Amino acid sequence: MLGKKLREVLGSEKVKDSQSWRLSYAYDGTPTGYRGVPDVVVFPETTEDVAKILAFASEEGIPVYPRGAGSGLTGGAAPLEGGIVVSTEKMNSIVEIDEDNLGVLVEPGVVTYDLQVEVEKRGLFYPPDPSSYKYSTIGGNIAENAGGPRCVKYGVTKDYVMQLEVVFADGTVAKVGSKAVKSVAGYNLKDLIVGSEGTLAFITKAYLKLIPKPEAVRTALAVFPKVEQAAQAVADMFKAKVIPTACEFLDKNSIVAVERYAKIGLPTYAEGLLIIEVDGYEAVVDELISRAVEVCKAAGAEEIKTAATKQEREALWMARRAVSPAIVQLKPKKINEDVVVPRSRIPELIKNVYRIADKYNLMVVNFGHAGDGNIHVNFMYEPHEADRVEQAVREVFELTVALEGSISGEHGIGWMKKEFLPLEVGPALEKMKAVKRALDPKNILNPGKVFDL
Amino acid sequence: MLGKKLREVLGSEKVKDSQSWRLSYAYDGTPTGYRGVPDVVVFPETTEDVAKILAFASEEGIPVYPRGAGSGLTGGAAPLEGGIVVSTEKMNSIVEIDEDNLGVLVEPGVVTYDLQVEVEKRGLFYPPDPSSYKYSTIGGNIAENAGGPRCVKYGVTKDYVMQLEVVFADGTVAKVGSKAVKSVAGYNLKDLIVGSEGTLAFITKAYLKLIPKPEAVRTALAVFPKVEQAAQAVADMFKAKVIPTACEFLDKNSIVAVERYAKIGLPTYAEGLLIIEVDGYEAVVDELISRAVEVCKAAGAEEIKTAATKQEREALWMARRAVSPAIVQLKPKKINEDVVVPRSRIPELIKNVYRIADKYNLMVVNFGHAGDGNIHVNFMYEPHEADRVEQAVREVFELTVALEGSISGEHGIGWMKKEFLPLEVGPALEKMKAVKRALDPKNILNPGKVFDL
Repeated sequence: MLGKKLREVLGSEKVKDSQSWRLSYAYDGTPTGYRGVPDVVVFPETTEDVAKILAFASEEGIPVYPRGAGSGLTGGAAPLEGGIVVSTEKMNSIVEIDEDNLGVLVEPGVVTYDLQVEVEKRGLFYPPDPSSYKYSTIGGNIAENAGGPRCVKYGVTKDYVMQLEVVFADGTVAKVGSKAVKSVAGYNLKDLIVGSEGTLAFITKAYLKLIPKPEAVRTALAVFPKVEQAAQAVADMFKAKVIPTACEFLDKNSIVAVERYAKIGLPTYAEGLLIIEVDGYEAVVDELISRAVEVCKAAGAEEIKTAATKQEREALWMARRAVSPAIVQLKPKKINEDVVVPRSRIPELIKNVYRIADKYNLMVVNFGHAGDGNIHVNFMYEPHEADRVEQAVREVFELTVALEGSISGEHGIGWMKKEFLPLEVGPALEKMKAVKRALDPKNILNPGKVFDL
Repeated sequence: MLGKKLREVLGSEKVKDSQSWRLSYAYDGTPTGYRGVPDVVVFPETTEDVAKILAFASEEGIPVYPRGAGSGLTGGAAPLEGGIVVSTEKMNSIVEIDEDNLGVLVEPGVVTYDLQVEVEKRGLFYPPDPSSYKYSTIGGNIAENAGGPRCVKYGVTKDYVMQLEVVFADGTVAKVGSKAVKSVAGYNLKDLIVGSEGTLAFITKAYLKLIPKPEAVRTALAVFPKVEQAAQAVADMFKAKVIPTACEFLDKNSIVAVERYAKIGLPTYAEGLLIIEVDGYEAVVDELISRAVEVCKAAGAEEIKTAATKQEREALWMARRAVSPAIVQLKPKKINEDVVVPRSRIPELIKNVYRIADKYNLMVVNFGHAGDGNIHVNFMYEPHEADRVEQAVREVFELTVALEGSISGEHGIGWMKKEFLPLEVGPALEKMKAVKRALDPKNILNPGKVFDL
């Protein structure tokens, strides 16, 4: 029925509503399984297609669920109420790489890694690097305002989105933002839409900022007996005027898990491990990595390795890359929260996360982007421990807010965290809802995400 | 009457409504004189004061005009419809400099320069540097999303605002954004409010990002026979991986005006002059300025000077700093537009601005932040030429939009440019209005600015 109408609107090849298609597009990257099955999945090829879909859905009051690669971790793509899943898979062109202005125009379905490869061929660089970058799409990255290890130096996805072409809920096509480097003409709807998880507008094109590719990279790995020492090193790094490209942290449980899994010689007595990477001009990277090493020594690091070649660097990064595969061997289930605190509060955060884990008798593993204060808190558990995990997670969020942090640095709210959003945003929540009602009065765009109206 | 009621709300010392106070706060920095006289001027000292004022004004439906230093150039602070001017003069504390997290908490009335001096004492750096920075306030800078020469490398005010405490039109006090480096919890109201020119919320506190102060600076001045050569040099600079701290441009008329005024030996045959500044680590600034010089030579520069000491640098900057005092001697009146285009479109912009000036028989002077593509187009005129200037300005805006640029890079829309906003933002304008109605349903916050409802 809905499929039939949409075939009239779009033509039949772009519309799928068999059981197998519907089930395939019910799932996304969230570890809890699917929530809701779409009535139909559509594959627009142009902005006009998207405008037709939204005008139709708006007219009929049917929920629309935008979907990139479906790799989100908080259920952003889940079709909670059925309706129409709109996949960007067929809108996947890199339209133009503008070398003169350091910009690139892309469709939303372009995979982030594919974009990076193309621009790096030209000596250019698109920094945002969420863990999913080899399969997640630019459209999804923008909708979630994705981060990644390099964001400590280079900023998040938002910082690279200059202009968007979007379709609003009523089918209006508009450009927001500017191809010019600066613009203060009217309200900044662009940065409002970035990170709004597909609830305010559907992104049909993005003009992204590029930067020159850094000339050189150096990497160091430092091991600290005490977690406070690692945190101190992170804070001191910035004081020594080293803004690292990446500054990744592993706690004791991560180190032990990685060592058991990969046997790469990490000292399992250590409470903290940092991987520090710097990049920039050839003339300066050696000095920067020396400064970083000095900072780590002064803070109490006991073992420090540095790497200059790509191969050596890969070896150091193994410690970080092995974390995810290593920890899933610890317990059958995990819940991964990505809280962020001001850098100086990292020791308090970690200590109190351990306290909470002890209180609920749970295993917890902490690692992540220490340079940003963004720590992935992973509770590893057996199915029967789920209730305790839920209580522990709530305490972690309360702790994070008490430390003036944020309950999500990268993964978004989706449906999974919406009950916790008021903890952080307080009275601003009603204003967010007012904005949602203003831009999507019928609540058809990704309903049930971020908050309930 | 209004004064009496507000005295009841705030106490009498914070409320002024004599003729002299009212007239003093009718003016701002726009060159066209005042528009509207407030009924009363109030000087809140706390967030609670502001909340009381807005709750009262909302209840009574009285317009509220937030005001920093009143140095805006598009009439942002003008009390068009009378009502209440709310000055931030008494909310001018630097509350806390957080050296561990590279942040600073300030009240909105802090003068930008005062903040910069304080943080630089600690080896820290707040980059945004609008020309008005010695007297304009952080609150005003945030409301306008102020730029400045250094923004080509460091970004604009928005890029340094991490969290705001604001009062919404109905008196609701809320925090938006986060003290954490990354946050994707809920809608990004923070970046919506930055640059909204006081029309969406009143800023009562700002937590700003700081960076380590660059260790070293180098400056060069290059003179080009042809304007295209200067523009080429700007584009090539980025390709040579030199992101300049500043990349300022003067056109032929600016050069001639400066030389007549300051007699510093500029070659008046030249169509373009660039001042390029680089900063960063000691180990790299000499190499960067050499690369910049090579790029300028290759593009056709005929005279190049470089400077390393502060004194030498000041001498080169004289050419730029003398522009404003020099050009006001050319004609009794000027109108200064700050259009922005993608960098590669600068030659087209300049050529066509000259064509428009010829068409209307007007004198035009172009200078500005070439690294950003942000050119200040100044028509210098006699009072009787005002009608032609108005037509020329409209053509410049149409040209800018045709070149995929923005009608304002730094100065905002205020009341002066609101008739031109639809040229640039098109169908997004209705969505901006919907957001305004959602957050300020009675239209009491700075009504008549940015657009009319």
